[in-house]
Amino acid sequence: MYRPAAEISTRQQLIEQLRELLGERVSTSPSVLEQHGRGESWHPVQAPDAVCFPHSNEEVAEIVKRCAASVTPVIAFGTGTSLEGQVQAVNGGICIDLSEMNQILEVNSEDMDCRVQAGVTRRELNHYLRETGLFFPIDPGANTSIGGMAATRASGTNAVRYGTMRENVLGMTVVTAKGDIIRTGTRARKSAAGYDLTRLFVGSEGTLGIITEISLRLHGLCESISAAIVNFPDVRAAAEATITTIQMGIPIARIEIVDSTYIKAINAYSKTDYPELDTLFLEFHGTRAGVAEQVQMFDEISQEFGATGFQWAEKEEDRQKLWRARHDAYYAGLAIRPGYRGYVTDVCVPISRLADCITETRADIAASGLFAPVLGHVGDGNFHTTMFIDPDDDEMFQKALEVDRRMVRRAIEMGGTCTGEHGIGMGKLKHMRHEHGDGAVEAMQAIKAALDPHNIMNPGKVVAC
Amino acid sequence: MYRPAAEISTRQQLIEQLRELLGERVSTSPSVLEQHGRGESWHPVQAPDAVCFPHSNEEVAEIVKRCAASVTPVIAFGTGTSLEGQVQAVNGGICIDLSEMNQILEVNSEDMDCRVQAGVTRRELNHYLRETGLFFPIDPGANTSIGGMAATRASGTNAVRYGTMRENVLGMTVVTAKGDIIRTGTRARKSAAGYDLTRLFVGSEGTLGIITEISLRLHGLCESISAAIVNFPDVRAAAEATITTIQMGIPIARIEIVDSTYIKAINAYSKTDYPELDTLFLEFHGTRAGVAEQVQMFDEISQEFGATGFQWAEKEEDRQKLWRARHDAYYAGLAIRPGYRGYVTDVCVPISRLADCITETRADIAASGLFAPVLGHVGDGNFHTTMFIDPDDDEMFQKALEVDRRMVRRAIEMGGTCTGEHGIGMGKLKHMRHEHGDGAVEAMQAIKAALDPHNIMNPGKVVAC
Repeated sequence: MYRPAAEISTRQQLIEQLRELLGERVSTSPSVLEQHGRGESWHPVQAPDAVCFPHSNEEVAEIVKRCAASVTPVIAFGTGTSLEGQVQAVNGGICIDLSEMNQILEVNSEDMDCRVQAGVTRRELNHYLRETGLFFPIDPGANTSIGGMAATRASGTNAVRYGTMRENVLGMTVVTAKGDIIRTGTRARKSAAGYDLTRLFVGSEGTLGIITEISLRLHGLCESISAAIVNFPDVRAAAEATITTIQMGIPIARIEIVDSTYIKAINAYSKTDYPELDTLFLEFHGTRAGVAEQVQMFDEISQEFGATGFQWAEKEEDRQKLWRARHDAYYAGLAIRPGYRGYVTDVCVPISRLADCITETRADIAASGLFAPVLGHVGDGNFHTTMFIDPDDDEMFQKALEVDRRMVRRAIEMGGTCTGEHGIGMGKLKHMRHEHGDGAVEAMQAIKAALDPHNIMNPGKVVAC
Repeated sequence: MYRPAAEISTRQQLIEQLRELLGERVSTSPSVLEQHGRGESWHPVQAPDAVCFPHSNEEVAEIVKRCAASVTPVIAFGTGTSLEGQVQAVNGGICIDLSEMNQILEVNSEDMDCRVQAGVTRRELNHYLRETGLFFPIDPGANTSIGGMAATRASGTNAVRYGTMRENVLGMTVVTAKGDIIRTGTRARKSAAGYDLTRLFVGSEGTLGIITEISLRLHGLCESISAAIVNFPDVRAAAEATITTIQMGIPIARIEIVDSTYIKAINAYSKTDYPELDTLFLEFHGTRAGVAEQVQMFDEISQEFGATGFQWAEKEEDRQKLWRARHDAYYAGLAIRPGYRGYVTDVCVPISRLADCITETRADIAASGLFAPVLGHVGDGNFHTTMFIDPDDDEMFQKALEVDRRMVRRAIEMGGTCTGEHGIGMGKLKHMRHEHGDGAVEAMQAIKAALDPHNIMNPGKVVAC
């Protein structure tokens, strides 16, 4: 990246100012910069000029004010697990790593809510909550920070019952592009008091402000949990069984499709012996009687659609094993293609179109010759393929880009979205206008310009299209 | 209101233009203007200069474009049931009455969603859906339009289980201040694709654009519904029972407090003989076994908190009667004070503070000498008093304003909001900065200025503070 000398000099002065503020908690070590210039996707590293590790809202506000004074980009960083190039410093700038803001500030058991600093991870929160009878259900797989999850509108396997970050964030503390500390929302469960700033910042990927604290809804741990896998003749049968399950109002907690290609990889990697068919992974939460009733209803529905081979896991240890196998799918794929990297896709369609979308996507993958198994949160109509790519094979990478592009187009044509849960970052910028139309994109850009007129908050992302 | 001659002339020309576009569907009849200059609250009538009755998105866009060209205010109108002065034409202008845009455009049973024009009312929608096994649960009491419900982020009695308009709108068609027709959201259940314009327009009360079509989530009708009333020694006991019910994860569909004052009025008006105590009105939805289990669990909880006098209603006719008594509470109050008008308040607090907030508010009401019974959506922490006011007694009205002001302050001090479901309109403008702080209000104002730079969309509301 070309940088004018004046800009370099300004950045050096800024870094000196930040050192006066934060001392040792400013790093320009090349390894730290590199680590902060990428997520877990294929997007190339673009390192910031410095990384700050603030401890308070006030420190974040001071950093932003100094960056604003010199019109320097500011990029928030959680655990670095984003998948669409969300943290890349496309014009350099200052990365604000929130991992040392990791205090759980309050838990209100009666109200089933809590307030945490942005750097608290979801496992830390659930560990802290273990004595309270409450838990935070959203589970995108990785042990992500709550701030990062809010910023990307994360969801994952439990969303079909408990919702996504959109439904589970009550309010936030945000540092604006001017360096003001504002509070969105209250602890009330609902409000009609003005524009929904909370929902605007959820999913804004650091482009409108830095999320420093989050108030979350919590949920009660259920008396009974039961997990299972069950096989279907094909993806369509699994999808139809899911549609009926949801229409019947069964409050299923997890309903995940894993295709036969992934099951083969999982069996090899996790030493399981699941039948190598398109499979649903399930979990039921409720009272003992409620779970028994849900299971019976689901069993009847799934028989109608040709299900076979139910395997139940009720003990916690067995459930853990089952979900570990599901969550290790990525590594199972890598084990089949050692040395490759995963290119993860993410679309979401109306559930009635899910079987079509998966079936057409699998046919496209087969035609491309790529190794790209499929899994998804079928209850939400959200699915992923992971395309395993030889990092030295550019032709293979170009094929993957094309499969991804066609998959997104297909999802949008079916009334869906280019991303169910991974966000836009840089990777999906090219689909924004196709999905939303020019008018809606221009409304988003107008909001961005209003809240960040000098475009210092994570520039080049989300609305830079 | 003083109007310069040039403005009057411009408005006349505009009305002529609108007549060319819509013919008879532009009205300047004084009675029509008056009817469109008020909701159902105490706020004085402020009539628009003309009322248009468009039939399509394109007609709405044309109206807005012509208003924009002469910088004339545009106010959307649904059923006129708003409670905070949302539709008053504070600077005159053109009212867009959406009641003739009342088509149900599509119902997708498999996806449990539908798309309707803004003027469809919730009862029309549910009547249309009656053969499908699906329903739209949100019930604010009045037979409101779906567009108005989206615009004010309405909720009501079922929100504790099914959420509010925030959770149940999938996407919208909106005419912007420039007269562009944009689409927010898709039919996918979740998306991480850019800023959440849907949630931004939900609750924006016509100040950012005109909502013309709404895609909604629908829900499956349950096999079994059971309703009940049960009495408690006081509000605190009822609130504690509610907290425990929710913590236990009982998926109760309605849990409404009605105070002893209201029960007395209801008994007189609806010829019921409910014990004149603080009372919960309840409804359970589920499978037959699920409802039985919920009822048993709730029964055990409520005994702990001193509940007495369960009266069950399982037949549809009996349930209707019970809920009619609850929904007629307002008229029951008016019957006690004939010739008075109701001044309805609306706050929402964390549920742990609900008993405190209601108890302190009732003490304040008692000290004021006003007749002002209390009811509320206790599962959400949301409650209302209706203060019955002699329209000729200004001193009484001033007392009501003061009780309301103190009630809002109390709710905000307790971590709550100045409005759970009625919105800001003009009536709650004065509380915006106290609730949100200057920084958050300025962010809202910046968004308003970005999307409506000439301030033509429902000026004087929500962010005019």
